[in-house]
Amino acid sequence: MPRRDTRSAIVDAAVTVLGRDGPDGFSASALAREVGVSKATLFHHFASIDEIPTAAFERMIAGSLAIDMPHDASLADTVELLGRGSAELVRSRQAFFRAYFVLMARAMFDDGLRVQLRASGDALLGRLCALLAPKIADGADAAPFARLVALQLDGSAIHRMAFENDLEIDGAWRLLVELARLKGKTR
Amino acid sequence: MPRRDTRSAIVDAAVTVLGRDGPDGFSASALAREVGVSKATLFHHFASIDEIPTAAFERMIAGSLAIDMPHDASLADTVELLGRGSAELVRSRQAFFRAYFVLMARAMFDDGLRVQLRASGDALLGRLCALLAPKIADGADAAPFARLVALQLDGSAIHRMAFENDLEIDGAWRLLVELARLKGKTR
Repeated sequence: MPRRDTRSAIVDAAVTVLGRDGPDGFSASALAREVGVSKATLFHHFASIDEIPTAAFERMIAGSLAIDMPHDASLADTVELLGRGSAELVRSRQAFFRAYFVLMARAMFDDGLRVQLRASGDALLGRLCALLAPKIADGADAAPFARLVALQLDGSAIHRMAFENDLEIDGAWRLLVELARLKGKTR
Repeated sequence: MPRRDTRSAIVDAAVTVLGRDGPDGFSASALAREVGVSKATLFHHFASIDEIPTAAFERMIAGSLAIDMPHDASLADTVELLGRGSAELVRSRQAFFRAYFVLMARAMFDDGLRVQLRASGDALLGRLCALLAPKIADGADAAPFARLVALQLDGSAIHRMAFENDLEIDGAWRLLVELARLKGKTR
């Protein structure tokens, strides 16, 4: 495989392995087996095993931001779709999201991992901002709104997994959609 | 000490030990030493060591909801104070909050701990709801608003610790205060 395709195949396999086996089943050996390459090849593309879940998470979220989002959706519709899409993602990829939060908790005690996660978080916020900015009424800065949505996405994901209270969380999203209606461009 | 005071002293000591030493320094021995009781006394009051951080967290948040909150504050003022108070709490008790999120991540793989955390979360949401309900304009249900605030509080705490981006998070809270202004009783 060309260098770039191998890297990409590793990230795809990480999404698969984390989603299927959780953090306990995630190792360089398991990942190499899934891709069909040697561990040496794995470490040729990534300096450390810890970099791979971050890259995998970024790709999964980036994919979910791009999919099923009509280009002309209003700010309110977009926020509603993001809320619904993320709820679906947490349900269908529960093991993967668990692994991500385990990683986040570890990052609090590990500066290297924190720098990576922050870069990953910033990249995702940039994409979210680019998605929302054209839909926000004139003059308003998109960044605080995108941040509010990002906090809601992560808070919801962790609450859905730790408390399993989807109905209550859906109610909170409806309020956020209401705020989006006020902040969005009228058509 | 009377039974109830001992239990209370254990919970206070857990807040101290977790806040000072983080999850690695948190053990039955360390806790018993801090309170000045035996481990047997500890396990007379709590069935498992895992119950204690949950109780400690509950007490800390309940305390922070009660303190510095003027009784006649509007919904918007209350949300602003909660945002500011939680930012301060995350700064001053960082090790403790880290410990809490480590606990939350563990709960995703441990049904017993999840049941406890959910009960603790529900109790906190009940208090938040009681605080906000009298300030919400007629007819509106306080529960979704309280849930929205709770999701923002947890999302913010985890982002503040994992990404150290307080300025951006403060911007998101200003938007939430704006929503609170629309939902609050006019005076």
